[in-house]
Amino acid sequence: MPTLVLLRHGESTWNQKNLFTGWVDVDLSEKGVKEATRGGELLREAGVLPDVLHTSLLTRAMRTAWIALDAAGRLWIPVRRSWRLNERHYGDLQGLDKAETAEKYGEEQFMLWRRSYDTPPPEITEGRESGVDERYAELAPDLVPKTECLKDVVIRMLPYWYDAIVPDLRAGRTVLVAAHGNSLRALVKHLDGISDADIAGLNIPTGIPLRYELDADLKVISSAYLDPDAAELAAAAVAAQGKKK
Amino acid sequence: MPTLVLLRHGESTWNQKNLFTGWVDVDLSEKGVKEATRGGELLREAGVLPDVLHTSLLTRAMRTAWIALDAAGRLWIPVRRSWRLNERHYGDLQGLDKAETAEKYGEEQFMLWRRSYDTPPPEITEGRESGVDERYAELAPDLVPKTECLKDVVIRMLPYWYDAIVPDLRAGRTVLVAAHGNSLRALVKHLDGISDADIAGLNIPTGIPLRYELDADLKVISSAYLDPDAAELAAAAVAAQGKKK
Repeated sequence: MPTLVLLRHGESTWNQKNLFTGWVDVDLSEKGVKEATRGGELLREAGVLPDVLHTSLLTRAMRTAWIALDAAGRLWIPVRRSWRLNERHYGDLQGLDKAETAEKYGEEQFMLWRRSYDTPPPEITEGRESGVDERYAELAPDLVPKTECLKDVVIRMLPYWYDAIVPDLRAGRTVLVAAHGNSLRALVKHLDGISDADIAGLNIPTGIPLRYELDADLKVISSAYLDPDAAELAAAAVAAQGKKK
Repeated sequence: MPTLVLLRHGESTWNQKNLFTGWVDVDLSEKGVKEATRGGELLREAGVLPDVLHTSLLTRAMRTAWIALDAAGRLWIPVRRSWRLNERHYGDLQGLDKAETAEKYGEEQFMLWRRSYDTPPPEITEGRESGVDERYAELAPDLVPKTECLKDVVIRMLPYWYDAIVPDLRAGRTVLVAAHGNSLRALVKHLDGISDADIAGLNIPTGIPLRYELDADLKVISSAYLDPDAAELAAAAVAAQGKKK
């Protein structure tokens, strides 16, 4: 039976500083490294052993996967990476402090940018850190985002789901997708058929594997975090991010 | 112009103990980690930035590549792995001490097993650590080696060279191959047209990138280690391994 495991990268240095990150390629914090290790231990303890890995092109997701697979004894599985699994491009908010942004623009505008399904932040200003570098050299210029709402992420993520991940699942493999808060929210929205309105309330914790058991047609039979108690606490913390400083 | 970079993994825990390793999946030693880091720094300093990585399925090669690419800022390049880049299977010598083996069987037999082109060591005895585990599950049983001479390695490595590495080079990419003493000797033999007799004298040092500049038809224009002085010293040390204890 196909098994899909979603893993959001461990805390990054910008998560820690409470900054909008998006496509900026920041690395894991020390805490993030520990979370990734724990994620791999959870996989090993649960006997959920990935046969193949899909990640984004961002270091924090690649490193989380490497550390987790190392802890699970599965470094050797095939890996594929795509910009389509990248974090949402946060436009001109990238690099800004979340609490300061909430204060400056008001809670309503802040939550609209963070959680509305189809309102993107302002486009990245020329000269600010877009995160777009050599690794995207083969990407057609008209595909390179200047900002994205979650709807944009769903639209650019789904072709990779269908063309790269689904064939692995249809072959009965256990597939690990190591990615980001919003690219994984996009995937969970699709898998669980969550409405455009309800997806606002879904937060995915860092470093805790989320296992989906699927039937042969890839309908969801069940889904659960490998450490449900930790996942609940962590998701609440993500939801509160605008308030922290 | 296509560039090919060969990188032998850093010292492993069994290199350190002077044991025959072959397909046994031992990890890097602390020194090996440092060598891999230095290898990546050499790539970055020389501006030799890989576009794609090919490795074996063995941890010491995969980890060397990961560490080196991390140091070079190229973690995001595509990676492909194949058993065809694995170290030579050392048959029943796997796990034995090199100096003890030389003493027990005599220098002549020892050097025959280590350096003759077409004399394999005795086949691995049932029950001893063959190194063949789940990662080779999709490999046809008749392809799984029980022992290999260098000629066997050339024969099983070349299809991967032609089918996986050459297309990347023909596309003009800078290709990093992170592998092993003998799978790289096999490749260098092919590239440089070294005779069956002369290949015995070729030793490849750990952790020092070896750059080949190739023409459009993949003929060798030039080749050099990125740190020639260190390479010379290290190759001499490899050659002397039977004598160390």
